[in-house]
Amino acid sequence: MKITLLTITPHAEKLIERAGRTAYQSVRKQRQGSEKKFVRMLVKSGHLSVLEHANATFSIKGVSRAATHQFVRHRFCSFTQKSQRYVDEHKFEFIEPASISRNTKAHLLFNDFMHRAKRTYIELQKLSIKKEDARFILPNAVETELVVTANFREWRHIIDTRGSAKAQWEIRKMAITILRILRKYAPTVFSDYQIDSKLDVIRKIKSE
Amino acid sequence: MKITLLTITPHAEKLIERAGRTAYQSVRKQRQGSEKKFVRMLVKSGHLSVLEHANATFSIKGVSRAATHQFVRHRFCSFTQKSQRYVDEHKFEFIEPASISRNTKAHLLFNDFMHRAKRTYIELQKLSIKKEDARFILPNAVETELVVTANFREWRHIIDTRGSAKAQWEIRKMAITILRILRKYAPTVFSDYQIDSKLDVIRKIKSE
Amino acid sequence: MKITLLTITPHAEKLIERAGRTAYQSVRKQRQGSEKKFVRMLVKSGHLSVLEHANATFSIKGVSRAATHQFVRHRFCSFTQKSQRYVDEHKFEFIEPASISRNTKAHLLFNDFMHRAKRTYIELQKLSIKKEDARFILPNAVETELVVTANFREWRHIIDTRGSAKAQWEIRKMAITILRILRKYAPTVFSDYQIDSKLDVIRKIKSE
Amino acid sequence: MKITLLTITPHAEKLIERAGRTAYQSVRKQRQGSEKKFVRMLVKSGHLSVLEHANATFSIKGVSRAATHQFVRHRFCSFTQKSQRYVDEHKFEFIEPASISRNTKAHLLFNDFMHRAKRTYIELQKLSIKKEDARFILPNAVETELVVTANFREWRHIIDTRGSAKAQWEIRKMAITILRILRKYAPTVFSDYQIDSKLDVIRKIKSE
Repeated sequence: MKITLLTITPHAEKLIERAGRTAYQSVRKQRQGSEKKFVRMLVKSGHLSVLEHANATFSIKGVSRAATHQFVRHRFCSFTQKSQRYVDEHKFEFIEPASISRNTKAHLLFNDFMHRAKRTYIELQKLSIKKEDARFILPNAVETELVVTANFREWRHIIDTRGSAKAQWEIRKMAITILRILRKYAPTVFSDYQIDSKLDVIRKIKSE
Repeated sequence: MKITLLTITPHAEKLIERAGRTAYQSVRKQRQGSEKKFVRMLVKSGHLSVLEHANATFSIKGVSRAATHQFVRHRFCSFTQKSQRYVDEHKFEFIEPASISRNTKAHLLFNDFMHRAKRTYIELQKLSIKKEDARFILPNAVETELVVTANFREWRHIIDTRGSAKAQWEIRKMAITILRILRKYAPTVFSDYQIDSKLDVIRKIKSE
Repeated sequence: MKITLLTITPHAEKLIERAGRTAYQSVRKQRQGSEKKFVRMLVKSGHLSVLEHANATFSIKGVSRAATHQFVRHRFCSFTQKSQRYVDEHKFEFIEPASISRNTKAHLLFNDFMHRAKRTYIELQKLSIKKEDARFILPNAVETELVVTANFREWRHIIDTRGSAKAQWEIRKMAITILRILRKYAPTVFSDYQIDSKLDVIRKIKSE
Repeated sequence: MKITLLTITPHAEKLIERAGRTAYQSVRKQRQGSEKKFVRMLVKSGHLSVLEHANATFSIKGVSRAATHQFVRHRFCSFTQKSQRYVDEHKFEFIEPASISRNTKAHLLFNDFMHRAKRTYIELQKLSIKKEDARFILPNAVETELVVTANFREWRHIIDTRGSAKAQWEIRKMAITILRILRKYAPTVFSDYQIDSKLDVIRKIKSE
């Protein structure tokens, strides 16, 4: 999995403060560093709509179609995904779950099957089957790539739902990596999350 | 593919008229049969937001995961889909594209591959691999099932985009079947569409 | 304020169960009365997306434009509202807040002002000012009317945010009335809310 | 009306190209200036979802509540608006429609009424009526302020619907000003619009 930040709203927390102060007409109170306290207040009191003014766009590579079929359900995200209808997949890469790779027999079975999938795909192409139809044999494990944009409120929602212990391991890993990056640019917006690196889980720090 | 209407707003066109007349405060003009003219006016003038008051819910079975990965991108739909994380797939059914089934060699290759996918899935399960991870080998062709609810404006949007010649054949077939059903219950709302049964394509009738 | 249910998904809780069981492929377990337990489980575990399959449409009359300017911010609702651009408002009705009506001086001031607003509106019309521009003098108190459709998940969200003590009194009253109606048709979906009729506030019953 | 760009996705058209090429896996074809042709292709072929990766945030001052009650209906925008519940409005400014200001009698009537609205608001406050309730007398003409963020696809939708001759004059003026600014930063994305400065209307240039 390779996740790269393509772009993020410049001075995002400053912008959020600027927008939020419009509601109370207190823009003149904005000064060097005041965004920290303001953003903390927004998050604590649940006024999350103001966080929608800041956006971040990521490139995500090396994830399975199994993971993205879940991910694309997030309505407030904008996705552009590698198309199996238009892109030739005869050299596809794939994701192997850890539970399989650490089990020798399962690992062999799995890799043998992926190899056969690739061969079948190529043979179908030789028989003049179009990519759009040949892709019907491609397994969920096949790697895909996408670019995704969402605002900070939605990123928080994704971190909440996909970072929890109940989420699938691959999408959870995605949520953790994204949180690590977002924190560098908007530390206060995402300051109430804690990453448990041992269990690969995100926890929310309860504010007193 | 088996598409069944589970529920639809009762007297949908009457409700749309009732809602639309709120804007102009002309509810007292509503009478037996007046919805036809009113709905036609809405569609013709592009006041489609009023169509959002009516909803329809379908059960869709016997479609591939390839098709649903596209379908679930429609943000204004509500989906509940068979989960490959929780449901045992060792007896999965699959969709075979027509371009493959009418090519003897391709047909054999494809079916042999599906057979092997099933066997590999079962063997992984015997090795104690959980459904959540075993599903990584499942091909796009595997059948899924979903229940989807959308309002009439969104159904029109789906018919527009997924019924066109550019759309994938499976999702196009879905759009056509849904249009056929919706027309019975709300003939005026969907009266500007024409199904070309030879080419399996939906066309919009231009109003003069 | 007059709120009337125009339509609601028939057998809503049954439909929700039917849709939800698609995920786990347990539709055959559905029987007489089984929806209660199933819906309770969904709400308790937070699987609220399944509630989106059921919808309810209300006619809302006798509320102020102050209230609706807030209400129309709910993105997942579908609204059709009386248009001040197209409808003649020379006989407008208005909402008087309780804090004003129980203060004799304020009450006189307020009503005198509304009377003057009406006269000014009529005089502007006599000077050939169009409704679209004459409405600029109409106060927030002026009554409006709307038809609104939302799914049960969104109605729960509205009840959560607009029924709380922090919400404006008018929109809170709206939330309470709507909850009272919805409960009759989908008692289990809305069973974890309690109306405090003294304080006009909705509370959530914590599940143990 | 004063509209200021607060922030916009840096190198927006380059980002759109980068995201769009993910679908076709042609990122390596991206080079100096290639975004022009790519974005033109997207717009022409209607692949507008890729435009969602770029966002722009505006501060909008000096518009009436009449205009914003319409504007906030755009679901894909994020709004933070000056709150009449929390902000003291005893010095409110207001918008006077041109049809009124150029009619001497109407102009006097209108301004006299606004003056009286202000006095009534102040008197209600002296009687200890809270801002939340005193605002019920505030006319639609009262100025508001908001910060709005939307992606380029939604800005195009706003320009389409609010720039047309049928739209209200104030929101049309807003659409025109926003288009003028967006064009400087993303000329290709918005190149198929033409502003008729005489009629204050936006037209779409049909591509041959």
